[in-house]
Amino acid sequence: MSPHSTSTHAPDPTAGEPGKTSGETREGPAETRTRRTTFASQNDIEDTILHPGTVRINVQGAFITDDEPVTPRSEGEEYEHDPRDIRLPNHTAVVSHIAVDIGGSLAKLVYFSREHNGTSVGGRLNFLKFETEKIDTCIGFMHKLQNDQQQLNGSKPEELCIMATGGGAFKYYDRIREALGVEVIREDEMECLIIGLDFFITEIPNEVFTYSEEQPMTFVPIPPQPSSIYPYLLVNIGSGVSMIKVSGPRQYERIGGTSLGGGTLWGLLSLLTGARNFDDMLKLAEKGDNSTVDLLVGDIYGTAYNKIGLKSTHIASSFGKVYKAKRAAEREAEDGCNGDGKHHDEDELVQGSSELPHTPAKFRSEDISRSLLYAVSNNIGQIAYLHAEKHGLPRIYFGGSFIGGHSQTMNTLSYAIRFWSKGTKQAYFLRHEGYLGAVGAFLKRQPRNWGRRSSFEDTRPSLH
Amino acid sequence: MSPHSTSTHAPDPTAGEPGKTSGETREGPAETRTRRTTFASQNDIEDTILHPGTVRINVQGAFITDDEPVTPRSEGEEYEHDPRDIRLPNHTAVVSHIAVDIGGSLAKLVYFSREHNGTSVGGRLNFLKFETEKIDTCIGFMHKLQNDQQQLNGSKPEELCIMATGGGAFKYYDRIREALGVEVIREDEMECLIIGLDFFITEIPNEVFTYSEEQPMTFVPIPPQPSSIYPYLLVNIGSGVSMIKVSGPRQYERIGGTSLGGGTLWGLLSLLTGARNFDDMLKLAEKGDNSTVDLLVGDIYGTAYNKIGLKSTHIASSFGKVYKAKRAAEREAEDGCNGDGKHHDEDELVQGSSELPHTPAKFRSEDISRSLLYAVSNNIGQIAYLHAEKHGLPRIYFGGSFIGGHSQTMNTLSYAIRFWSKGTKQAYFLRHEGYLGAVGAFLKRQPRNWGRRSSFEDTRPSLH
Repeated sequence: MSPHSTSTHAPDPTAGEPGKTSGETREGPAETRTRRTTFASQNDIEDTILHPGTVRINVQGAFITDDEPVTPRSEGEEYEHDPRDIRLPNHTAVVSHIAVDIGGSLAKLVYFSREHNGTSVGGRLNFLKFETEKIDTCIGFMHKLQNDQQQLNGSKPEELCIMATGGGAFKYYDRIREALGVEVIREDEMECLIIGLDFFITEIPNEVFTYSEEQPMTFVPIPPQPSSIYPYLLVNIGSGVSMIKVSGPRQYERIGGTSLGGGTLWGLLSLLTGARNFDDMLKLAEKGDNSTVDLLVGDIYGTAYNKIGLKSTHIASSFGKVYKAKRAAEREAEDGCNGDGKHHDEDELVQGSSELPHTPAKFRSEDISRSLLYAVSNNIGQIAYLHAEKHGLPRIYFGGSFIGGHSQTMNTLSYAIRFWSKGTKQAYFLRHEGYLGAVGAFLKRQPRNWGRRSSFEDTRPSLH
Repeated sequence: MSPHSTSTHAPDPTAGEPGKTSGETREGPAETRTRRTTFASQNDIEDTILHPGTVRINVQGAFITDDEPVTPRSEGEEYEHDPRDIRLPNHTAVVSHIAVDIGGSLAKLVYFSREHNGTSVGGRLNFLKFETEKIDTCIGFMHKLQNDQQQLNGSKPEELCIMATGGGAFKYYDRIREALGVEVIREDEMECLIIGLDFFITEIPNEVFTYSEEQPMTFVPIPPQPSSIYPYLLVNIGSGVSMIKVSGPRQYERIGGTSLGGGTLWGLLSLLTGARNFDDMLKLAEKGDNSTVDLLVGDIYGTAYNKIGLKSTHIASSFGKVYKAKRAAEREAEDGCNGDGKHHDEDELVQGSSELPHTPAKFRSEDISRSLLYAVSNNIGQIAYLHAEKHGLPRIYFGGSFIGGHSQTMNTLSYAIRFWSKGTKQAYFLRHEGYLGAVGAFLKRQPRNWGRRSSFEDTRPSLH
């Protein structure tokens, strides 16, 4: 694109908290909990210590847990610890690396910690996010992990290695290296995203789900053949949006994107509403009525536009009612006539720019939030469908912190895919949607045929 | 789409004034001016009077003129008369109809008037637009035309017929009929758009052009074979956006659209900037620097993301810098520390919602306007490309009042098509881009093989 044009890379963003969807199951499946198999050898351990970052993570029997996070808590609101750790009950090797994915808005951190109940095997992946602008808090946290290495993982602080991805892996490379005095290995962002996604799809039960209003969260079983998941489209929604075609393990191509992503929603809503964070914006959107700001087909036709199948409630123009109402209100104000009797309480309303002498055209923050959430989500849905259609991709996975487990967002994305594809394509979501890149960076160097879905499992006797 | 979802019909909008592009040629081509051929018969005239609305308009030798408009002028700013009439030097039949296309934001009116220099043949098409919310002004204007029918067209006031299209043709049907006491014939909006566009492409010299920064306005010659123009994509950008695949004369299908259109730009900018009309918004955008509000690839990576070919100046996230800056400013304010020394003059700035205790995060109206103009235009460009690609359409025509002859908009749309299609598809623009539907309604009932590009011309002797 030109210097001024869209295009987009896919920085992973948000100040939101993922996974607040009701109805989700947080228990790991019983059958995986009984597995205590491990094949890690002394050689693995020594190899790991000699070559930090080349550790083999044993993901066999991994599952999502809802235990309380075990590691350092945030003082104040400096970061957020995702409550859904992933238990790795069979991992024994020393882990001497942590992974960080530094996007345009958020830095996502993944690290391993041994179980603190004294058993010799097993541990968990921990998930945290920081605002990228507070990168020093993130580096400080990594420093603390470094000091705790011996206790967490059995390796020495100086052996720690940082796997870094996202734009910030380049922008903050020197800063991280200097602050921690350790090696920082930079990994390609897109590759990490798809390695992370492949891991979640093929290894973690109750991670991937479909969404509809009738069936809010339907988990997708682990595929019997890992190769059957290809080809697919990954739509990663951060500050901006990247769309990546994945043809096979580590075979990918960025085929599109849009600059209208999470950053657009957070930016515009921080200007237009009183919301100070992403959670507040989503709460506003849930209570909103977009028909007060959006121009619907019925507003134009007085009825449906039957000939081309558009219902009267279809959105013809997002925010299409605002200009008209604003101008009418300005005229009223100029005529010395204030208010039209339809206004809501003063303190709930958005007044627009403060440049003008106060104009009485007011719109509810709730309605504005819902309209913009619909607009951004629908738009991403349509573009995702069109790219998937062009490349013959039947499955579309949505990742990135924008989604944040928010029902309305997932419903809109899911509906858009069904609508445009006439039901031939399906939208998939993930419970760790914000951590694809960080997990990918964490796992990148593990052998491919490791884990539940590997040939490894098929050729060795099971001990349970 | 669902009750809440995008989709979109394509109401035609705007409060803008089209055609302010520099470098355009307003003179009709010399060769057409010498033509004074006419084949209109007494039968035609009688037929017209008996069947209002079925008039045959002789478009042979039509050209764009920049004469002063000859008909009733607006008192105040109630409507806008487009300065670019289309001369129809060979038309003689009595015209007893006018056409109106009533969209979500604007009503566009087209009517014929005889030349007032006393010659017996020829006349011109006049183009006017009204805000749809002032529909009574538009009806009043039609009433005045009705009273002037005898002088303008030689028919009686009671013989006037209104050809109406757009959503308002349905919404305001009764109101127009009652006010004027005449027949109102409603025509399908999409069909009128493509009839109008076909007319402009195949009949009007210096109407269709391509746009690039290097060559702002390159006119496209009238195609030697009218059938060679198919298939094409029409992207009509009004309050919302419709994308229509056209396979042949009057063969069309609405294949997509987006609710992110002109209404979105006008609505959001009327909230976020002091601009009170579309022209002001475009002027602001021309002076803006989007890099103060948009998150660029360079902001995330500190450099380009070379692996996937994204320059450091690419927009990763539209408005992606706003949230961060706003929050930082709020924190400063809470700490009792105002301003960061980088702010512009107070009276140029946008302060965001007035709900909050005044927050010092300020963005220039110019920068916000440019960012949003880019975002909306780029987005339409990408979606248009994807639909054109899906349906194998090499040419993409952009119509609708959103464009308004504005260089930045056309440049962005044009660039997006070139970028995404890797140069295989071309964007086309029109000087009467806002009047496709109205002209289509005006011409709908003329025989197909009438005019410059018709078989009609090939089989009869030319008189000039």
